Order: sequence, then structure tokens, then C-alpha cells
Amino acid sequence: MQNLIKKLINKNSKKIVLCVLDGLGGLPKEGKTELEAASTPNLDKLADVSSCGLHLPVARGITPGSGAAHLGLFGYDPLHYEIGRGVLEALGLGIDLGPNDLAIRGNFATVEYKDGNPVVTDRRAGRIPTEENKRIISKLSENIENIDGVKASFYPGMEHRFVLKLTFPEKIPDGGDLINDTDPQETGKKPLKAAGENKQSENAAIVLNKFINKIAEVIKEEEKANYTLLRGISVYPHLNTYDEAYGLRAGCIATYPMYRGVAKLVGMDVLEVKVNSIASEVETLKREIDNYDFIYFHVKKTDSYGEDGNFDGKAGVIEEFDTLVPEIMSLIPDVFVVTGDHSTPSTMKAHSWHPVPIMINSAYPRLGSASGFSETACNSGSLGIIKSVEIMPLLLAHSDKLKKYGA
Amino acid sequence: MQNLIKKLINKNSKKIVLCVLDGLGGLPKEGKTELEAASTPNLDKLADVSSCGLHLPVARGITPGSGAAHLGLFGYDPLHYEIGRGVLEALGLGIDLGPNDLAIRGNFATVEYKDGNPVVTDRRAGRIPTEENKRIISKLSENIENIDGVKASFYPGMEHRFVLKLTFPEKIPDGGDLINDTDPQETGKKPLKAAGENKQSENAAIVLNKFINKIAEVIKEEEKANYTLLRGISVYPHLNTYDEAYGLRAGCIATYPMYRGVAKLVGMDVLEVKVNSIASEVETLKREIDNYDFIYFHVKKTDSYGEDGNFDGKAGVIEEFDTLVPEIMSLIPDVFVVTGDHSTPSTMKAHSWHPVPIMINSAYPRLGSASGFSETACNSGSLGIIKSVEIMPLLLAHSDKLKKYGA
Repeated sequence: MQNLIKKLINKNSKKIVLCVLDGLGGLPKEGKTELEAASTPNLDKLADVSSCGLHLPVARGITPGSGAAHLGLFGYDPLHYEIGRGVLEALGLGIDLGPNDLAIRGNFATVEYKDGNPVVTDRRAGRIPTEENKRIISKLSENIENIDGVKASFYPGMEHRFVLKLTFPEKIPDGGDLINDTDPQETGKKPLKAAGENKQSENAAIVLNKFINKIAEVIKEEEKANYTLLRGISVYPHLNTYDEAYGLRAGCIATYPMYRGVAKLVGMDVLEVKVNSIASEVETLKREIDNYDFIYFHVKKTDSYGEDGNFDGKAGVIEEFDTLVPEIMSLIPDVFVVTGDHSTPSTMKAHSWHPVPIMINSAYPRLGSASGFSETACNSGSLGIIKSVEIMPLLLAHSDKLKKYGA
Repeated sequence: MQNLIKKLINKNSKKIVLCVLDGLGGLPKEGKTELEAASTPNLDKLADVSSCGLHLPVARGITPGSGAAHLGLFGYDPLHYEIGRGVLEALGLGIDLGPNDLAIRGNFATVEYKDGNPVVTDRRAGRIPTEENKRIISKLSENIENIDGVKASFYPGMEHRFVLKLTFPEKIPDGGDLINDTDPQETGKKPLKAAGENKQSENAAIVLNKFINKIAEVIKEEEKANYTLLRGISVYPHLNTYDEAYGLRAGCIATYPMYRGVAKLVGMDVLEVKVNSIASEVETLKREIDNYDFIYFHVKKTDSYGEDGNFDGKAGVIEEFDTLVPEIMSLIPDVFVVTGDHSTPSTMKAHSWHPVPIMINSAYPRLGSASGFSETACNSGSLGIIKSVEIMPLLLAHSDKLKKYGA
């Protein structure tokens, strides 16, 4: 579909603002979802003159992770494209990634040596304090820089977790996780050797094994964290950028590193937000909208409260966003969209597979039969239930950015 | 899908009448679409006892041309099958096409010769009057008939435009536009040589270049129209006929050449309509219905008024059709369908991507929750939003023409 869209692109200066309230979709508690319980006069009024519906992030019954859900929203089929675990972890720590990078989730572990071979005795090195993690990461950074022209960068995470980024001298071929985890998943076993699934990943695996040995040498005197187990070894996904795919200059307004990272993967400029608040994000939008054709505007806390099971907290964030809608609309975007990346019902305290409400406000609305912006009203919306990957073609169409198909 | 359908075909004498109001789908003006503003008591009454819904001509956000939209309606996936520009132009002029034909859109152009080579000075030969075009076409027809066993037929269009049909001694392989345009798109440049994308189209291109040179020789003394630039060079699309695909004897009732041409491509008999009016089309239907299993009944002016931005004109054509519905129903078709090929909202003065209302009246309706025939009511219809290529299987099913699938 992206190939077809590319052929039909009709560049113009119309502006699309895609607001993603993370985990927006909910389930009813006492008859109403979070969105239905929230007082949202501005969204309700807009919905009545917009095309509304629901979208499926991946497929019926499939609960998406945040990376997969965002790929879909951005028009990249999450069943086809994949963001590896290592890449997602790196993006979450705000680490810059490029086409030459291999991203890896690491655990510090404890091993004993038998006949010179390591055997795992604790897969998490007793969950060492984060401070100790940071000290060991510094030691690794000082002692290990480069093997066979491949540069290593170490980043501490919480407790025993860290990220290792290997920067190769040239682009690594595309693909998901092409090298196996080295974590044997059980104590009493030897760590696994890294091996690649094809020739190019095998070459990367050879270098990776050298790094593993070198790391073991540097930290061998540590009491607990004397070895590393690596997982989610994954390459930077080679996605067409928004410019390549849609001819769009795109900007990202998000405060959480992972979302900024995913936006960067598709070639969006990540814009500065001064304070971690929706109001501050709106300030960024006002400042930057003239520089872009497309703005991705992300609100995180709807999801966080959903995950915490805090129904009122989630409804409160939706209300906060609603009060800012008039300010966004005063910028007169040609297409204004409100949706979520997936559902996070606070009654479930987790992401879910339920379709996500969406409204597309533009000059070309087809109206539905219900009023307001809610799961129930969107269910009677003119869009019906669409797939998340169908959203981008619709937004391009609603901004006159697609030519006619066929004679 | 067509392969599956073919296996399940259960021939019977039941009759399907598919009424296509071109560009039927609309957008609201003062709260109502053209279909909603029109007074349609007959369609409304029928819709209340029919299966209703909306169909997507190609895909979400994709605005189809008329050829692509009709392919979908007829059950041929418009993303897979293609009607080339030259073929569509030829069909629009009412030119007969067969499997051995290459259809080409031509422009008369003005060239100057430099060192014996043509250089384009006017890509449209000063938009010569249509009468002059006709005179030159006669001259070409008299002087050029046959090169290497390939027969040329010339047809004048408006101003500088014409159609060239090349009839080869045997079937040309299937495909879209396999030979490049020879129009260099800029003055001051040489016309391009025709070249094929594969061996068979390359052979056709060699003959085509000979025709181009021969034409140049015949018209070289013309003041303005002394050369030709060719575009949309395309072969007759080899579609299964309605008989092959569905076991249906199909007839076409349409007054515009292009639609008659597309119907002919899928093996429909093109039936005579005495006067260009919907009433006259109904007369043809009455006269011919006993001879066919399937009648495609096309109304053009809904689209024409939509393209003109004439909201009331479009609503008026819908009303005119509505008054004739009882006459059609008096023929007791087993399945009676009303839909459009695509949307042409008069507020947009153009085709659009919005789903198109459809009602399927038969002995087997599943009812929706809204009343009447309109975009909004169809949105609550029992069919939901379907793809246009799903319509034919549904019509076959509703007329008991499909056997059970699987044990």
C-alpha cells in the first residue's frame, strides 16, 4: 500500500495535526469509559462535524506494544515491520540510533567458572543497585571502545539492566532480531554464544562474541556483576521516512523518550518541549506548526493512569487535553485528528486489543449517527472500524495530498 | 477470489439488476448530502426491506478514476487489473477494442527539424480546431493502413487530440502501459522513441516507431500539426468475461461511451438506448430483461452535476431515478441493487475517496437500525463497509447463484 500511496502523492502546504492520547481507548466502569466519563465539551463539539470511527492497531484480538501500535498509526504495517526489543529499549533511554547501529538489552549476571567456562549462577546479578550498575558501566566505557572497527557504547538502566549499542562502520542489513539471545534462561547453564541467522548477521555475531569476552575480562573481579547476558539484539529498522513515504515534513511533539525515538525512526524532527505538560506541548505546536506539513502530538499520561488502574486519573488527563483543544484549533490545521495508539482500559490495568476511537476533522466530513466523542459514538461513526495503517492514507486524502487512482 | 467464485457458480434463471448512479456518494451541505436532500420515497421504502451498507471502491483514502471504480463494481480488483489511459480514451470515443489492439492517446504537435531531427516547438499544435483535426485524420487514414502486418485506425478527438488504434495479427500480452510515452513534456526537446518494458512490448514499440515516422512523413507539410506525440499506450485488458467469471449472460444499459466500453471489456452485451434519458434506459430494461441474467444499468448525470458543483442538479437526478424505481420493480428482478461507482460530492466538485451507499434488495435481507436510503442510514446498515469487489459475490449469493463452500 505504501508503494501505491507514494505514486499518488500530491504535495501541498496543507497541515495535518495528529494528536495521540496514549492508550485512549477504555472499557466501561459503571456504564461509562474514561472518555465517556470525562467532560469533553470541545472534543464532543468537534466530533459532531468530523468523520469518526474506531481503529484496530494490529488485528482483531491482538494487544499491541507501544512500538508496534505507533508503527501502525504512522502507516507502517506492524505485522510487516518490526522494532526489535533492543531498539525499543534504547529509544526508551533516549539513545540516538542510526542505520549502522545494533541495539542490545543487557543484564548483568553472576557466573562461576568451571574448567575455564562460565556457568550462570544468577541471571540478574542479585539485582545490583542502579548506582553500582552506573559504576560498572563507567568502567566498561573506559576500558572498551572498539573491536574490529566496531564501536561500543554502554548505557546504564535500572538495577541490573543496561543497553549496549554497537556502531558498525557501515549499514547493517534490515530485519528484526537476527541474532539469538545469549541468556540461557536458566541458572546452572552456560551463556549461549551469539550466532546470526544469515551471513551478514553472522559477521555481526562474531564481533559481538568478542565484545562479550572482553566485557567478561573487564568485570571478572566484580563480586556479583561479573558477566553479561544479552537479549533483543536488533538492528535499526530501515523504514521509509515520512518524506520518502508521503512527501511530508514531519515534526514530533512528545515528552517521553521512546515516542520521540520512534518518531525519529520515521524521519520526524523531534521538537523541544520546555516542560513536561500538555500545555507546554501546545506551546511547541504554536511555535513550530508553520515549519511542518505534519505534526505528531503525543500525550503520555492517559496510558500511565490506565496502566495504574486509575480511572479518574485517565479521565482527568483527557479533560486537560480537551481544555487545550480550542488553542490547537485556533491554529487552523487543515486536518486535525484525535485518537490513541491502542486501548489501555483502567479496569484492565494494561494495554488491550479493543479498537481505539478516532476523529478526523477536516473540510470533508461524512457524519455519523451519534453525537460526541466516545467509544460508543465512534461505533456509529462514518469511518466504521478501520485498520491503523489505513489512517495515514485517510489523512493524506483529507488534506488533498493524494491524486486520483487509475483512469 | 474470482477463482473461488468460479468454482461455486450455480447457474439459474434469477435476475440481477445493478443500478449504478455514477458518483452517488456525497458530503453534507447544510447537514444533508445530495442523496439525503433529494426526495426519494421509493428508494427509502425499498431500503427499509433491503440489506444496506457502504462500499469502498479501492481502499481507504483512495479516490478512484471511473475505469478503476467500475472494475471494482464488476468484481475485478482495481489494484490488480488496470485499464490503461489509451484504452479508456478509446472507449470514451466509442471505439471498438479487442484482444489484438493497442490503444493510444495522441496529440498533434508542431516540430522544427534541426539537422534532420524533429524538435518540439508546440506540444499541442496551437490547439488546432477540431475540423482541421478531422481533415488531417482523414489524410492519415487514406495514406497509412498497414505496417508489418499491423493495421492502423485513426479517430479524431477534440482540438489537437486523437486516438490511434493498432491492430496486431495476434493477441498482445496483458498488462498496463508497457510502452513509454513519446511526449517529452517540454518544448525545445526531441520527441522520445517508443520502447517496451519486455520483449513482446518491445516488438510492438518497434512497429509503433515506424508508424510515428510514417505519420510525420504524411503530415510534414502541415503548418501546425506536423508531428504526433503519443501517450497512454496501452493494451486491451484481458479480463474474464461475465460468462467466464460468473456464468452470467450480462447486458449493459448506459448512454455514455466509456461505460459501454468498460462493460464490453467484461463481455456484456451493450444494449440500445433510444434517447439519452433515464426513462429511455428503463424502456431498454423492460425490453431486454428477459434475455439476460444480469443487467448493469448506468446513470451518468449524478456524477456530471457533482463535478460541476451543482448540489441541486445532482439531487434532482437522484429524484428522477427514484420516480422510475416502481417501473423497474414491476419487472420483479430477483436482486435489485442501487449504488454508485464512487463518491462525487458536489461540495468537492470532484471524485472522492468516501464510501458509497449501497442497497441490495432481495428475498434475503438482513435489516439495519436506520430508515431510508442515505449515507447516514447506510452507515447503520447490515452490510457495514465492504470493498467494491465484494459486491459481485454478494449479488450472486442473494440470487442463489453460489453453492456452499467446503464440506
